[in-house]
Amino acid sequence: MSWPFAADDTPDEVIEAETARWEPLVGSVRALVDACVTSAVDDDRELAAARRDVESALARLRAATLPDTLGRLHAPAGRRRPWGNPVIGVRNPMAPPLVVHTDGSGRAEADFVCGAAYEGPPGLVHGGVVSLLLDQVLGHAVASAGRPGMTGTLTITYRRGTPLGTLRAEAWVEREEGVKTWARAHLLDPEGVTAEAEGVFILPRAVRERIAAAQAAEPSALRDVFDQR
Amino acid sequence: MSWPFAADDTPDEVIEAETARWEPLVGSVRALVDACVTSAVDDDRELAAARRDVESALARLRAATLPDTLGRLHAPAGRRRPWGNPVIGVRNPMAPPLVVHTDGSGRAEADFVCGAAYEGPPGLVHGGVVSLLLDQVLGHAVASAGRPGMTGTLTITYRRGTPLGTLRAEAWVEREEGVKTWARAHLLDPEGVTAEAEGVFILPRAVRERIAAAQAAEPSALRDVFDQR
Repeated sequence: MSWPFAADDTPDEVIEAETARWEPLVGSVRALVDACVTSAVDDDRELAAARRDVESALARLRAATLPDTLGRLHAPAGRRRPWGNPVIGVRNPMAPPLVVHTDGSGRAEADFVCGAAYEGPPGLVHGGVVSLLLDQVLGHAVASAGRPGMTGTLTITYRRGTPLGTLRAEAWVEREEGVKTWARAHLLDPEGVTAEAEGVFILPRAVRERIAAAQAAEPSALRDVFDQR
Repeated sequence: MSWPFAADDTPDEVIEAETARWEPLVGSVRALVDACVTSAVDDDRELAAARRDVESALARLRAATLPDTLGRLHAPAGRRRPWGNPVIGVRNPMAPPLVVHTDGSGRAEADFVCGAAYEGPPGLVHGGVVSLLLDQVLGHAVASAGRPGMTGTLTITYRRGTPLGTLRAEAWVEREEGVKTWARAHLLDPEGVTAEAEGVFILPRAVRERIAAAQAAEPSALRDVFDQR
């Protein structure tokens, strides 16, 4: 579930500076997460030394703590700063991360890699991770169509196991009716579709009011308000 | 999707020793993941120093790498060692981790905490993370009933946003028919149910054969073969 509901006039320089500030460290932590499940080191002293390194980094980061979550701090002006998001967040080491491309027509797509830390059945992406990834791209699709929303229902059909490695996700809006938007998505490995999703998204009241106001002011501005970055 | 398909005669001492070896380090990395999204440090030198610490730990862990993923290395004897699993794995810093309790009757439950790294909408658990957590407990439920399986379809109904914090997941088997098992689950915050799930799980051929063999040998051994730890 993305949260692209609000317009965001954050200057490009701020986005770029914050990304540049966090990306190297978070990239290293992401690699460390992977190493936790791929390492064959069994020397307890080495593992203890690694832990001391991690605790040192932790103490540095904990020298100052945000007064609230990134999501709450950046709402309502945080459309372009979903930095804590567990799928796309540049500050979240759990995120692969996906870089989701949208074209303003209700389509969203992302190419990415899922390594060993996403494993469920042997050699395969965890089925719940499949649903997590598809929920995210569905959210981008409805948002890019100017119909952002909270997920109401999400249905995943698993066609076959999704192998760890290079993957692609695609999503598109299928139908709009009142406050509801239906969107579909699928996940692909190099051989084709592995899982399909359908999501029903509910347009929140705040967004409905925003859309009404934007249309009254300048109808053509609507896409710009909701297009994902 | 859990992978509890195989019997596992790993001695308790091995499980305990491996858990004791990895839990402290992985716990620190988990805290570090959280710190990446909660830190207010904006001194680039401190962030660079933190990254050096992380790279030092990474170099130690990468001194030796497993020949394959934990899932593949531990299958088929890894029922009690889902250490890489992104929801329950003691070696996976992405996992909250859930400690799932089952009673052998097709019920599974877990109490856990989701912090800022699981945030989607402001202050709320990412809708896709909700589906990830529910898929996992559904897998435990069907396995504890002696009906382990790959997820065929998964349907999530979001009743309201799930706040970050203390949560509980419960799952139970509803119906069995041929190779299919239907199970339901819900996620609860302190106020009650926030999301519901239904999963259809497919009994793999290898498991069907194993069940047939176990029943032929000793009918009462079946629950023991599949009960989750």
